[in-house]
Amino acid sequence: MKEQRSIKIAVIGGGSSYTPELVEGLIKGYGDMPVSELWLVDIEEGRQKLETVGNLAKRMVKKSGIPMEVHLTMDRRTAIRGADFVTTQMRVGQLEARKLDEHIPISHSVIGQETTGPGGMFKALRTIPVILDICRDIEELAPNAWMLNFTNPAGMVTEAVIKYSRVKTVGLCNSPINFKKFLAEAYRTPESRVLPEFVGINHLHWVTSALVDGKERLPELLMGKGEYTAKNVPTLGWDPEFLQSLVSIPTYYLKYYYMTSEMLEEEKASLEKDGTRADVVSRVEKELFELYADESLEEKPKQLEQRGGAFYSEAAVQLMQSLYLGRNDIQTLNVPNDGIYDFLPEDASIEINCVVTSAGPIPLAPKHVPQQIKGLLHAVKTYESLAIDAAVSGDRGLALQAMVHHPLVPSVSTAKMLLDEMLEAHRKYLPNFFA
Amino acid sequence: MKEQRSIKIAVIGGGSSYTPELVEGLIKGYGDMPVSELWLVDIEEGRQKLETVGNLAKRMVKKSGIPMEVHLTMDRRTAIRGADFVTTQMRVGQLEARKLDEHIPISHSVIGQETTGPGGMFKALRTIPVILDICRDIEELAPNAWMLNFTNPAGMVTEAVIKYSRVKTVGLCNSPINFKKFLAEAYRTPESRVLPEFVGINHLHWVTSALVDGKERLPELLMGKGEYTAKNVPTLGWDPEFLQSLVSIPTYYLKYYYMTSEMLEEEKASLEKDGTRADVVSRVEKELFELYADESLEEKPKQLEQRGGAFYSEAAVQLMQSLYLGRNDIQTLNVPNDGIYDFLPEDASIEINCVVTSAGPIPLAPKHVPQQIKGLLHAVKTYESLAIDAAVSGDRGLALQAMVHHPLVPSVSTAKMLLDEMLEAHRKYLPNFFA
Amino acid sequence: MKEQRSIKIAVIGGGSSYTPELVEGLIKGYGDMPVSELWLVDIEEGRQKLETVGNLAKRMVKKSGIPMEVHLTMDRRTAIRGADFVTTQMRVGQLEARKLDEHIPISHSVIGQETTGPGGMFKALRTIPVILDICRDIEELAPNAWMLNFTNPAGMVTEAVIKYSRVKTVGLCNSPINFKKFLAEAYRTPESRVLPEFVGINHLHWVTSALVDGKERLPELLMGKGEYTAKNVPTLGWDPEFLQSLVSIPTYYLKYYYMTSEMLEEEKASLEKDGTRADVVSRVEKELFELYADESLEEKPKQLEQRGGAFYSEAAVQLMQSLYLGRNDIQTLNVPNDGIYDFLPEDASIEINCVVTSAGPIPLAPKHVPQQIKGLLHAVKTYESLAIDAAVSGDRGLALQAMVHHPLVPSVSTAKMLLDEMLEAHRKYLPNFFA
Amino acid sequence: MKEQRSIKIAVIGGGSSYTPELVEGLIKGYGDMPVSELWLVDIEEGRQKLETVGNLAKRMVKKSGIPMEVHLTMDRRTAIRGADFVTTQMRVGQLEARKLDEHIPISHSVIGQETTGPGGMFKALRTIPVILDICRDIEELAPNAWMLNFTNPAGMVTEAVIKYSRVKTVGLCNSPINFKKFLAEAYRTPESRVLPEFVGINHLHWVTSALVDGKERLPELLMGKGEYTAKNVPTLGWDPEFLQSLVSIPTYYLKYYYMTSEMLEEEKASLEKDGTRADVVSRVEKELFELYADESLEEKPKQLEQRGGAFYSEAAVQLMQSLYLGRNDIQTLNVPNDGIYDFLPEDASIEINCVVTSAGPIPLAPKHVPQQIKGLLHAVKTYESLAIDAAVSGDRGLALQAMVHHPLVPSVSTAKMLLDEMLEAHRKYLPNFFA
Repeated sequence: MKEQRSIKIAVIGGGSSYTPELVEGLIKGYGDMPVSELWLVDIEEGRQKLETVGNLAKRMVKKSGIPMEVHLTMDRRTAIRGADFVTTQMRVGQLEARKLDEHIPISHSVIGQETTGPGGMFKALRTIPVILDICRDIEELAPNAWMLNFTNPAGMVTEAVIKYSRVKTVGLCNSPINFKKFLAEAYRTPESRVLPEFVGINHLHWVTSALVDGKERLPELLMGKGEYTAKNVPTLGWDPEFLQSLVSIPTYYLKYYYMTSEMLEEEKASLEKDGTRADVVSRVEKELFELYADESLEEKPKQLEQRGGAFYSEAAVQLMQSLYLGRNDIQTLNVPNDGIYDFLPEDASIEINCVVTSAGPIPLAPKHVPQQIKGLLHAVKTYESLAIDAAVSGDRGLALQAMVHHPLVPSVSTAKMLLDEMLEAHRKYLPNFFA
Repeated sequence: MKEQRSIKIAVIGGGSSYTPELVEGLIKGYGDMPVSELWLVDIEEGRQKLETVGNLAKRMVKKSGIPMEVHLTMDRRTAIRGADFVTTQMRVGQLEARKLDEHIPISHSVIGQETTGPGGMFKALRTIPVILDICRDIEELAPNAWMLNFTNPAGMVTEAVIKYSRVKTVGLCNSPINFKKFLAEAYRTPESRVLPEFVGINHLHWVTSALVDGKERLPELLMGKGEYTAKNVPTLGWDPEFLQSLVSIPTYYLKYYYMTSEMLEEEKASLEKDGTRADVVSRVEKELFELYADESLEEKPKQLEQRGGAFYSEAAVQLMQSLYLGRNDIQTLNVPNDGIYDFLPEDASIEINCVVTSAGPIPLAPKHVPQQIKGLLHAVKTYESLAIDAAVSGDRGLALQAMVHHPLVPSVSTAKMLLDEMLEAHRKYLPNFFA
Repeated sequence: MKEQRSIKIAVIGGGSSYTPELVEGLIKGYGDMPVSELWLVDIEEGRQKLETVGNLAKRMVKKSGIPMEVHLTMDRRTAIRGADFVTTQMRVGQLEARKLDEHIPISHSVIGQETTGPGGMFKALRTIPVILDICRDIEELAPNAWMLNFTNPAGMVTEAVIKYSRVKTVGLCNSPINFKKFLAEAYRTPESRVLPEFVGINHLHWVTSALVDGKERLPELLMGKGEYTAKNVPTLGWDPEFLQSLVSIPTYYLKYYYMTSEMLEEEKASLEKDGTRADVVSRVEKELFELYADESLEEKPKQLEQRGGAFYSEAAVQLMQSLYLGRNDIQTLNVPNDGIYDFLPEDASIEINCVVTSAGPIPLAPKHVPQQIKGLLHAVKTYESLAIDAAVSGDRGLALQAMVHHPLVPSVSTAKMLLDEMLEAHRKYLPNFFA
Repeated sequence: MKEQRSIKIAVIGGGSSYTPELVEGLIKGYGDMPVSELWLVDIEEGRQKLETVGNLAKRMVKKSGIPMEVHLTMDRRTAIRGADFVTTQMRVGQLEARKLDEHIPISHSVIGQETTGPGGMFKALRTIPVILDICRDIEELAPNAWMLNFTNPAGMVTEAVIKYSRVKTVGLCNSPINFKKFLAEAYRTPESRVLPEFVGINHLHWVTSALVDGKERLPELLMGKGEYTAKNVPTLGWDPEFLQSLVSIPTYYLKYYYMTSEMLEEEKASLEKDGTRADVVSRVEKELFELYADESLEEKPKQLEQRGGAFYSEAAVQLMQSLYLGRNDIQTLNVPNDGIYDFLPEDASIEINCVVTSAGPIPLAPKHVPQQIKGLLHAVKTYESLAIDAAVSGDRGLALQAMVHHPLVPSVSTAKMLLDEMLEAHRKYLPNFFA
């Protein structure tokens, strides 16, 4: 990749409501990375949204004055051919499927969530075969491309690509970048001056060190300064004695594990009041697309920040630039374990600080891995690996084992009930299981 | 150890109702291993039981005609001095404490069990400091002795000795020997012709291979032939689809994890009907000691086999003989991991097939470790290691972390409640926590 | 494998002078393992020897009266079809090639030896492709057979089979069994009462413990009691201070590494006097075959014991019986590392004590691995792995790397000279390199 | 460490001829890291040199105008008290000892070199106890200080500190920085745009990747472009076929291993002509100190660059600044292995790219570790670990094992000769061995 060369990006799931943020990022970053072609791809069912959001993208680019072509297409192979970067941000089964992922578990008094628990498992079962299909295209048509996965469950999707394809891939989540922003703001210092250490995997990490301006701030954070949160997860508070003996700050997704009954109550109450989270998002998206459709709109609307995935695109653009320029800066990414955690498989995906070189990310081995968290981390990773293999093989036995060994599923009998009901509910998106 | 040399054995907790079985084993095995001195030790509170059971032992030996001296004493150091083997089979806080271990968790809808869950954790917290105190005596007075741990939770007690003393130790459970007997009986072959493979740790193992007369019988066992069980655990059945996709037979203790709600219901019903398991055992023990006190009794009474710990003593005598004779036979023991499972700490105790040489047991690395079980195994071992460190240090934070990270404890808030209530209830046996 | 079933054995290289020993072993062991068919296979060039030795085998069996059929054939596939055991004891290029392996290195002042150094490397390069060809037949025609490798370099040949085939294999050397016999004799006890611990790989092991009748005898062995040796290696003495700080007894092959200049001088002197070792063996074999051809001979002649490979066949028969019967006894074998030595690759072959079950050997992890030896062991294994990959691929670069990184090769320039000269000399047996 | 705080540096061996370079670096870097106190310490024998070089340092600082105090002292404890950084650059036994290290091995036809082979081993035996004595002072008087080791053999000295003290330490060599400069110059790009990957340990590394402006340049470097070298090692050329099949560029120190006989011949010829390297350096140093003594000199003289340790001080100042400022930049340092190489001990020192944070360096796991080099790397590390333990314990057996297992020592008999002769020659600097 020479600096002079222009860049082609293909966005799978280009009709997503997040796209304007990505476009904004590419416009702002054009000086560092001149993207000449942006291909937004979607499937037939998404044609309408693709056109709406794609036209907004075109207006944004036009206003900016940069020479970036925006293409809208249903033809994935054309979009991928010769691409430098392929990003994925899709939702197999759309919000209707998410609704089932959230609702069915709750109806059995099990956490119902998009990426955690049985819901996340079924999202993975639906998504992974499609992602691997895309990988086949990339292997053939853009073998040097980097694939950036935003698609949730991002850790599992990335692991599937690591194990079952030759595509170069990185998984991305906005949770680490949000924590850095929180930390920078709390200590009124630039983001470049904070260095938190993340231990774990996607949506299951612990912050075990927090250097701010060269000083370790974890102890005072554990004493209660500046609890951080995010818009898409309830903000129940942590027990201080627990945090201090944990000697690390758990991501908010860990509340599903450490405060299971409280979270379940909250989910039930929320379900009663507003429907599932999918219902809420559905309403937000509807509003967003109404805004996008306004032909006078030429920039990313403020309201998008309410959507929940804040800074995803910032993360993506940063990553593309560092790969392109060989910036050797530190970013928190989902990459293969490769021996970093000696208790996890070599080819498991982990979420970790990396130096991003032009040859790819190189992980920084964490300095503090609390004894406390190893078992839970391994338990969830075991579930993930089983579910990935189940997704690829369509093996019901593997799917049962994945479900049983998920720490949030209380028994074999509940696991079987959930499995039966959810397989049936998502039948049309699970061809591997119903061949 | 020369073959001609006579053997001295010290039994800590000699007043246990199990002692007659051990004595019977030593009498039968005298030809292979001539024990010249058997020291039964107990504490002041156990004097009465020690005398009753000790006098029975003396009558049994006398009847057999072998020249083995039986000593009864409250002086532990005299018993240990120069011993070849020290066995431990004690219960700190006696059945009263067990009753609390079982009752308090159930009252919070958490499994209440002697060795599993919060009950097992508190048994460990009470027992480990006493065991390490005994180790100090052995290090000084019998540095070449082998210490055989029967004391539950045997895996955790053994791990504590591995980590915090220089005593040579092995942990023993009757569960593997019971499975071998089941297998031998099911296939009408001698025990020496069966070789099951055990993967895991004490009270948390999976049988992943079952060679019988040189043939692999696991597949048919998974299809339902000959489910085995034990007297001290309810015999709910396993789901066949689950077993077959697990590709291994879980120990019955795993029902607490895989069938949690069913087991809890069973516990609650049983509590209603018969009181805790401690209450039941209490009645059984009372009857046994009445029998033992009968001066015409000169052999182990049949009723002892109903007690629940069948074949413990057979296991113990086999182990002592193989260490003494260098038999190089295969026994299933609790020993340090030492890299066998690369995802568990080196100094963790594991339950595994070993060749027993005169220099100690050498583990046989398992050939089949199902991917499925690694996370749960690591999660329970994480809890164990934290609880052991808590027992030694008296650190409340560590105890909280142990409790929170036990897979059967549903949340931080429940963990804190249980911790507070159980610390208070066992206060007098937990000096490390209340210094 | 049921006990009642009769056994078929195929011996690749059946015309070897060792065969009568194997036949004797099978006759003696018939009661435990009823072999019904023994197939001796050889190639066209070996027809004469096969007939001579095969007819002796038939006379031996006839005399014994057991109902074992002996078949002589050039048709390897027929011999292998449905076999229970396949043994290999062949020499690609015969003694002429060995002569070159020994002579060329010495002419460059490098150790010239059949299994160690550049000579061993070229034996591996010639042999491995032929062995893998045999494996293809076994995979197809006898997928459940065990392949027993006697063929030198046995460790490397076994590793090649592990890496490049699905055949179940074990490598065998007579060196460990010889050490056990030495130990038993030195302490006047049965072989079953000694348990030495072997650390390392084939022809590069250290004895790090020596239990005799349950007592550790290593310290006194290191003080000089009973140095052991073998007929096919010069018996220079070890330096006592060196041995004691090594805290282990090196195999006599380690003299090539620890006493390189002395061994080289010895080789040169011996070459001057008697020719290469290949020349000596050639004369011995000639005499043996003259004996074998004597139609009145009906048993293994005494003179065979002078041949150098004493007890190879005893080792083989013991192994076959234990696999067949599931004896669970301890034998020292070449098997995959599988994590035993964490500094060697998982799929490297190692030489180690194993329990031989009906499902195959299970290694016993060594208790004492001296820090001292790890580097040398890893260095030789690195050479071996490179040479194996070179043998399979015919890649000259890999062969050069193997040669350079062999600890006995002093420089890149010498390595290139040896490589060029030996590739040329063995050209007709190295089709992979001259395609 | 707050940015506002002033910095105290103690330089052990402050009388070294290298000191002016360090002083120059501190002056240039004053804007980034305001050093308020520089303490140059030496021993009584070095008083004269300390004064000469110290006065030059004072003149340099004075000329620069920055407010940095320069202190000269024989009182190590005063210098260390409260220091932020302690650097070591000393030579126990001075150049006279180095002369013996070089001369004695050559006289036995073994490589005689300051840091490699028996010479390096004896330098380690003399130096490590003194370094650990300094560590005791740091632990007491400046427990938060970073200790920067330049003292050779820097890898072994650093490992000794890791294993035998609680001091925070990093080892430094100028070899990686020289390679980066070579690469930057060869491709006419700034040093910040090159990222070579170093695999191995101090003075035994291989460059396995060379990113320049985001492009991998290793293949063309292996084809011969721009062989790099250094002033203190002969520049014999590498064999191209060897390099290409090695798939990496070995450091010039590896010529002692890969071209042993050629290097030995070169050493012998050079010895004949110019005396040992110590003699040459002795003459250079004499000239340098004559220059330093000139009171009109107020800057580092050009001639210092001829001395051989070019850019050592640049490396040191960069490291101190990054630790002080938390720059998170990439530097190549000697740090604990901690699982990076799974075949080396956890506490071994390795030389590796690190991100330098304010909490210390975090290693970047190498992406390409050629199979070829593992054995040699492990063999040398084994020697190093044994020699370190010998230095600390004074155990002759360990020293013998270290010497025997050094790949450049051809046999046990040569090892014993060298050991005897060198122990005697360095007797007065080896109190641990002659207690």
